[in-house]
Amino acid sequence: MAKIVTFGEIMLRLAPYHYERLIQADRFQATYGGGEANVAVSLSAFGHTVYYVTRLPENPLGDAAENALRRFGVHTDFILRGGERLGIYFLEHGASIRPSRVVYDRAHSAVSELQPGMVPWEEVFAGKDWFHITGITPALSPSCAEVALESVRKAKELGLTVSCDLNYRKKLWTPEEAQRLMSRLVEFVDVVIGNEEDAEKVFGIREEGVNVEKGHLDIEKYKKVARRLAERSGAKRVAITLRESLSASDNNWSALFLDDSSFHVSRKYALHLVDRVGGGDSFAAGLIHGLVSGWEAQQALEFAVAASALKQTIPGDMNLVSEAEVMSIVRGNLSGRVQR
Amino acid sequence: MAKIVTFGEIMLRLAPYHYERLIQADRFQATYGGGEANVAVSLSAFGHTVYYVTRLPENPLGDAAENALRRFGVHTDFILRGGERLGIYFLEHGASIRPSRVVYDRAHSAVSELQPGMVPWEEVFAGKDWFHITGITPALSPSCAEVALESVRKAKELGLTVSCDLNYRKKLWTPEEAQRLMSRLVEFVDVVIGNEEDAEKVFGIREEGVNVEKGHLDIEKYKKVARRLAERSGAKRVAITLRESLSASDNNWSALFLDDSSFHVSRKYALHLVDRVGGGDSFAAGLIHGLVSGWEAQQALEFAVAASALKQTIPGDMNLVSEAEVMSIVRGNLSGRVQR
Amino acid sequence: MAKIVTFGEIMLRLAPYHYERLIQADRFQATYGGGEANVAVSLSAFGHTVYYVTRLPENPLGDAAENALRRFGVHTDFILRGGERLGIYFLEHGASIRPSRVVYDRAHSAVSELQPGMVPWEEVFAGKDWFHITGITPALSPSCAEVALESVRKAKELGLTVSCDLNYRKKLWTPEEAQRLMSRLVEFVDVVIGNEEDAEKVFGIREEGVNVEKGHLDIEKYKKVARRLAERSGAKRVAITLRESLSASDNNWSALFLDDSSFHVSRKYALHLVDRVGGGDSFAAGLIHGLVSGWEAQQALEFAVAASALKQTIPGDMNLVSEAEVMSIVRGNLSGRVQR
Amino acid sequence: MAKIVTFGEIMLRLAPYHYERLIQADRFQATYGGGEANVAVSLSAFGHTVYYVTRLPENPLGDAAENALRRFGVHTDFILRGGERLGIYFLEHGASIRPSRVVYDRAHSAVSELQPGMVPWEEVFAGKDWFHITGITPALSPSCAEVALESVRKAKELGLTVSCDLNYRKKLWTPEEAQRLMSRLVEFVDVVIGNEEDAEKVFGIREEGVNVEKGHLDIEKYKKVARRLAERSGAKRVAITLRESLSASDNNWSALFLDDSSFHVSRKYALHLVDRVGGGDSFAAGLIHGLVSGWEAQQALEFAVAASALKQTIPGDMNLVSEAEVMSIVRGNLSGRVQR
Amino acid sequence: MAKIVTFGEIMLRLAPYHYERLIQADRFQATYGGGEANVAVSLSAFGHTVYYVTRLPENPLGDAAENALRRFGVHTDFILRGGERLGIYFLEHGASIRPSRVVYDRAHSAVSELQPGMVPWEEVFAGKDWFHITGITPALSPSCAEVALESVRKAKELGLTVSCDLNYRKKLWTPEEAQRLMSRLVEFVDVVIGNEEDAEKVFGIREEGVNVEKGHLDIEKYKKVARRLAERSGAKRVAITLRESLSASDNNWSALFLDDSSFHVSRKYALHLVDRVGGGDSFAAGLIHGLVSGWEAQQALEFAVAASALKQTIPGDMNLVSEAEVMSIVRGNLSGRVQR
Amino acid sequence: MAKIVTFGEIMLRLAPYHYERLIQADRFQATYGGGEANVAVSLSAFGHTVYYVTRLPENPLGDAAENALRRFGVHTDFILRGGERLGIYFLEHGASIRPSRVVYDRAHSAVSELQPGMVPWEEVFAGKDWFHITGITPALSPSCAEVALESVRKAKELGLTVSCDLNYRKKLWTPEEAQRLMSRLVEFVDVVIGNEEDAEKVFGIREEGVNVEKGHLDIEKYKKVARRLAERSGAKRVAITLRESLSASDNNWSALFLDDSSFHVSRKYALHLVDRVGGGDSFAAGLIHGLVSGWEAQQALEFAVAASALKQTIPGDMNLVSEAEVMSIVRGNLSGRVQR
Repeated sequence: MAKIVTFGEIMLRLAPYHYERLIQADRFQATYGGGEANVAVSLSAFGHTVYYVTRLPENPLGDAAENALRRFGVHTDFILRGGERLGIYFLEHGASIRPSRVVYDRAHSAVSELQPGMVPWEEVFAGKDWFHITGITPALSPSCAEVALESVRKAKELGLTVSCDLNYRKKLWTPEEAQRLMSRLVEFVDVVIGNEEDAEKVFGIREEGVNVEKGHLDIEKYKKVARRLAERSGAKRVAITLRESLSASDNNWSALFLDDSSFHVSRKYALHLVDRVGGGDSFAAGLIHGLVSGWEAQQALEFAVAASALKQTIPGDMNLVSEAEVMSIVRGNLSGRVQR
Repeated sequence: MAKIVTFGEIMLRLAPYHYERLIQADRFQATYGGGEANVAVSLSAFGHTVYYVTRLPENPLGDAAENALRRFGVHTDFILRGGERLGIYFLEHGASIRPSRVVYDRAHSAVSELQPGMVPWEEVFAGKDWFHITGITPALSPSCAEVALESVRKAKELGLTVSCDLNYRKKLWTPEEAQRLMSRLVEFVDVVIGNEEDAEKVFGIREEGVNVEKGHLDIEKYKKVARRLAERSGAKRVAITLRESLSASDNNWSALFLDDSSFHVSRKYALHLVDRVGGGDSFAAGLIHGLVSGWEAQQALEFAVAASALKQTIPGDMNLVSEAEVMSIVRGNLSGRVQR
Repeated sequence: MAKIVTFGEIMLRLAPYHYERLIQADRFQATYGGGEANVAVSLSAFGHTVYYVTRLPENPLGDAAENALRRFGVHTDFILRGGERLGIYFLEHGASIRPSRVVYDRAHSAVSELQPGMVPWEEVFAGKDWFHITGITPALSPSCAEVALESVRKAKELGLTVSCDLNYRKKLWTPEEAQRLMSRLVEFVDVVIGNEEDAEKVFGIREEGVNVEKGHLDIEKYKKVARRLAERSGAKRVAITLRESLSASDNNWSALFLDDSSFHVSRKYALHLVDRVGGGDSFAAGLIHGLVSGWEAQQALEFAVAASALKQTIPGDMNLVSEAEVMSIVRGNLSGRVQR
Repeated sequence: MAKIVTFGEIMLRLAPYHYERLIQADRFQATYGGGEANVAVSLSAFGHTVYYVTRLPENPLGDAAENALRRFGVHTDFILRGGERLGIYFLEHGASIRPSRVVYDRAHSAVSELQPGMVPWEEVFAGKDWFHITGITPALSPSCAEVALESVRKAKELGLTVSCDLNYRKKLWTPEEAQRLMSRLVEFVDVVIGNEEDAEKVFGIREEGVNVEKGHLDIEKYKKVARRLAERSGAKRVAITLRESLSASDNNWSALFLDDSSFHVSRKYALHLVDRVGGGDSFAAGLIHGLVSGWEAQQALEFAVAASALKQTIPGDMNLVSEAEVMSIVRGNLSGRVQR
Repeated sequence: MAKIVTFGEIMLRLAPYHYERLIQADRFQATYGGGEANVAVSLSAFGHTVYYVTRLPENPLGDAAENALRRFGVHTDFILRGGERLGIYFLEHGASIRPSRVVYDRAHSAVSELQPGMVPWEEVFAGKDWFHITGITPALSPSCAEVALESVRKAKELGLTVSCDLNYRKKLWTPEEAQRLMSRLVEFVDVVIGNEEDAEKVFGIREEGVNVEKGHLDIEKYKKVARRLAERSGAKRVAITLRESLSASDNNWSALFLDDSSFHVSRKYALHLVDRVGGGDSFAAGLIHGLVSGWEAQQALEFAVAASALKQTIPGDMNLVSEAEVMSIVRGNLSGRVQR
Repeated sequence: MAKIVTFGEIMLRLAPYHYERLIQADRFQATYGGGEANVAVSLSAFGHTVYYVTRLPENPLGDAAENALRRFGVHTDFILRGGERLGIYFLEHGASIRPSRVVYDRAHSAVSELQPGMVPWEEVFAGKDWFHITGITPALSPSCAEVALESVRKAKELGLTVSCDLNYRKKLWTPEEAQRLMSRLVEFVDVVIGNEEDAEKVFGIREEGVNVEKGHLDIEKYKKVARRLAERSGAKRVAITLRESLSASDNNWSALFLDDSSFHVSRKYALHLVDRVGGGDSFAAGLIHGLVSGWEAQQALEFAVAASALKQTIPGDMNLVSEAEVMSIVRGNLSGRVQR
């Protein structure tokens, strides 16, 4: 198995139970998650040795966030401690026509105050194979953006494969800010992952008929998006996840993968959702697993899509499934019959 | 915004968790609700100044019921205290082919013992714009029926617009009793709201092919029902909600509105239900909001249907949504994508 | 009503809440269930006098298992006490494409240590009408298999009607072991119940196009399976449940019944599942209810299918529904409208 | 073991969790209990065959109340079904200086509508040894009072030993009403159980220095109360429970027993309370167990006090302890060391 | 009753259940509280018309905080909306020798960004009788300190009585900062409330033998503290709460009150604690209630101490008790006997 | 910090909530714990690098047990996977005079099937400083006893300090079996930990006046026990924990330590218990921490007692406290005042 590093922000996630709205809730389920942390946990569940880099406050919430990672096998040796607070996000689960809603309370988090030079990247990357980051990390703060650049530059320099999930977050920065930073960052990226919204917001790539709100899809248009993403970023491999949001409860889920110059389109899953948060992260983890394992492009893609389809049936941000469970889905065991 | 009064019974609602049956339950979720109270809360959430009239016992359950209203902004200045008990209803959430079940334990409630003259209607209605009542209130007891008549007569006299949701409840009275009372009450009503079952039970209006059990709908038949309701009641505006009950989990939901002589039919929503109780009440609140805001009939109707569609994705009796959230649905944002 | 005996293992069932996976769970819902115990509870709910035979340890878990039976009206007079432990099973509820998962921890249970001669079958069966057993009981241990044979032989001898649900469990024994034992056991059985997997694993009956994983069904093939089951077992009545597993959340559910030489096919229900465990047991209970009540074959079959369709909308192993509730479904009341 | 009958009202008990007040609660723990029902369950746990007589409504709450009794082994064959509703009581657990609070919502319950002649007492008492009733049952309604008189008269006539816990409830009737009825009822009673408040309110027996609010105790004064109770009631055996309420969290608990003409005083227990409701009922059950078992007076008394001390460490109305567990306390094992 | 204004910060309070530590918790109970908000709720429960001034963010958490106030009768008309976030505090309930622990996450809250001139104090105070503030509000930020000064100055100018609970919070500011600001603020204060720690940290008043950690008390030393506080602050009325912390589970609780020149010492309560947070706030509310009602000093003090003793038996920050309940404690009903 | 190894069994612990008895429970809190695992977690919380050796089944429960260890920082590299099942124990929390009750369901666990040669002890102990085991491990099975001997022999041989908590469990083996095995095992042990019951059952050391049931203590008698334990075992250091069980809710807790030839007696803590399970384990961890840190005997003892006193205020088996928190208790901060 490979040695993999991811870097980003892990937050306390507070979610009401039973589809309650935030203003109804008198208790919250407390879990921990964040883009790159979710990728780390999933890769660890697939058997890799994974290190997660972040900065956490010196308080019980920082401890709990670290424990959440350790619990699922992620190495926390390179986590820095210090800073003001742990980021929080409140998640209101939507249902049917009512969308899920995220209220971010992540400003001033310990990781957002990271400064260049604080993370010993040389040491972190020594002997590692792969580095994964998302577009959320540089969006946290200008200094964090510098650290993100520092990280990919060093990873590339030390020979790691670098993947990046664009993950545009409109509550964190503007498209202009995102474009300025991300166009520098992708220079060091080998594998770019995104969806149509990311492409548009981060790189201004817009195709007629590609509509994030509607979610219906014309696969050829998406191929164009992928090709333009590859051109813009310089990455040879570009994956695009394709979510058809029929409602907050039901989605179709698939992806396409541009591997060098060949396109691969995955099977499409009709999902009845339990928790769609972390779907994209589990896709990234699945794809990295396939690529780092040297699988063929189609196989890696199918694994990534199946893994992330499974994720969306599991509560919490993290994809707590084994490779064997994903492979069973890839092989077409979708009947959901009780295993006993 | 407008000043609105509603009058009726608020109950303690006790519901098992996790789709358990009542005989399995060892804990109940405790919320509070009732037709006119639900309308009050929804109108308050839309920004109106709303007063709710009822009678509550002098005990902690009466306090809790009042608090539930205050919590969501409803004014409780005119709530009388006294009487024996707070009405209770037990709600067993159905699923798929198993229907939800309501066990009423509301007899002898404080409000059912209201006598004419106890509510200072003159004072209550002073400076108010709109009064809403439902057919449940007069069904609570003969004396309550008298108070209901007293209320609409006085509201009309003082120039308020009066709306009434017929809301026939077969466990509270017979069709004969309902017809006798309601035909007197609707004389003072400007806007009548109901469904096919109400029309039949309260006014004996039955059209072939209109079948409450089946729920499939022939819109022309329903128009006839609406027109006959208008004739019978003398109200110029009649709204009929159209529920196609595919199962306890999935419903189609729409409505039609006869505004003077023009018919309006709304968009139809395919809903995966979280809690359908209070669906009709949230429709009434949405319609009142539109009409009191002076919107066009079609706009008011679409708002009312979208609002009540949203309600059915929210646990509890009450529709805890803002005008902006409803307008987003009206504009067609049904994909349920996470807002973040 | 009839006097009915069932015999088997009741276990503690531990299930995470909210679709959590076992490795996420920090609390478990604790209920009790097992094939024949579930049949007993359901028959008791239909009004019969039911006795359940098993062996439970002398500890609070054994007490709790007995209490779970008594709570729902089952007579526990013939339950033996002693032995090492109560069997446990962990149930992870699946969703959408993720299958439910059962982790058995039932080895060394008190009942698995039963020895021939320990149960006073003569006394147990005195004055009773019907005996029900499943293929799980003989699979628990070789000595338990002997007791199972003892039970059916004695029941037959004393004139009871004997029914058996084949219920093959691959985690308990091999097809070879099952065939060896079950072919002896069915000699004493009047009514055989099973599905396509049972037929194949227990009697080696395989028809092309009958595929347990896919779940799609060609009814004629299933008729052949039923006929071969009747031939192999010597039973005049054979019922086959037909589950089309569309996903862990949605199933189609129906059954066919070979009564002497005539085939009966039931209505098919499209179910949104709450808890499919115990579906087969509730079918058996429904069928026994119909047959012991002397209903026509089609009527008994429709009752059994409707009963078990309802079960799958109720949490827990047990089918807590009345005859009247089932009859309402049989009569086509599937709209799930609130009963109030 | 003996065959014992008890008769009274069982209610749904709704209690907030975590010492919350009723106006804070958004969920209630749902259990079932009532004076005579609690005695029945405790006697069943001690190994007796116990029948409970009441009247329950024909709805799921009535079913659940019956199930709560069956679950713990009580026979429900003589429970009548019918009437309007199940009585409810809301229990707010106090702590420290804050008293527990009970809000009764039991008026109009099914059992309160019982009429003389409805219960087949002849059949109920056939072959039984002991009958237990409390002063709550006749307080429910005038007709219920008549049925209570009917029950003790018939029990006496058929040779059963009759015990009565005076259990004065000021929210149900006045001292005058209680005295009028209870002085007729105790004519048929062999064993009277009560505390100082009961003696005063039901029989006007007041001794200086006996103060229910303070709870401190002068044992000689209590002996006088007991002797006067014996004189007033004509019962040869009188037991008085002695509760020193130090706070809602800590009580001292003991009792005295006048057996014919000899006094017995029990050990006193210093209790840290979990749930004191049902304390008196578990004392009555313990005393009946001792007396029906033919134990010496002191032994029976010590058993009763130890049993009821244990009860107050267990949540819910019911005393779910075995004879062996009580005997361990009687023998002085009070250290609370873990049993492992 | 009086019209009262309080001003400060209300936070989301997140607390694990069952005495769990923060790093164990996977769910949090969500309530809302803050010094002045708690005073407002308690005064509202005593029957006063209370207005609470703060600033809340425009998001569902801000809405929920406002709803928590409205639910318990507090008027929210003068609450400003805007700013970045709602303050949060995490509360780990201690037990026995383990102290409770508060983790503040309140920096950057909406209210801390208040600027002078934003609150329309003239309008807020029009027609009001009393204004209450605590030393927490000026500690939130320098601009908030200015607004606090603005508030007391204007209140005084408009003739309101002003009370201030010193409430030193070492995690918010240093003693030097506190002294600088508070010495200016108390000029406008009529009633000062504090404990020995506040006196020392805010005014440098230290008496030998007064030890906040030990909590044992020499009442004469505390009188000296009170007198010095009166001198330093210029307030005629000074109340000091006296907490003897025996452990996290058991405290003694009393207070002394310097009214002009006469000292009053209250009864002392031995408390088994449910939730000690908000104890001081409920004391302040009780004292204000007594003083605004024109009671004698001793009576007001006893009421305040009894009210705050009760609070510490109730979960959450807020003292949900009525005047009648407090008076019952004042009259010495401490036995905690069930009220039924 | 040191490198420490512990070896034993970790179990799933299932405990009802709210002081419910096992037969009342319909949900269980699921945590994981076991003597040596608890020691490992506590030592990890004190900053050491800790490895835990056991054998877990290849199923989700085995995974969850491993995750529980990783979550709190314990290294699981040497955990073997395989075997039949994970041991379970059911814990009923006692209160006041009602003892806590443990129902073991640990027979046939994966670790109990360990065979000599399966654990690579050479590799496990390489570079480690300390090895800890308890008397539970050899009691699991004869083969496990052999592995336990293997472990201490090898640890000793490789120069590790070896500690052993005698931990006699009467449900696992007889005193005779324990004496036979443990007298061989202690030959390799440097530090022996136990209580009076262990001394008697494992080594037949009984002093008059030392009474496990009563729990009152005559310290001189306990010193004799310690000296005899040292003689019997050959260990130079012997620690004895002194628990005075006043009730299931209140205990006194202290210890004595024989270090070579000098006796040390600790401070005594009066504890109001939250969860006393794991108290002894946390004492062992505290003592090891002190000794491995090279502290003086008295200091190490006080740390161990304070640490284990804190543990008993925390739910679950594990002592989730830092060194700083323990030191605060050692310094006498017992008032439990809120830290804010």
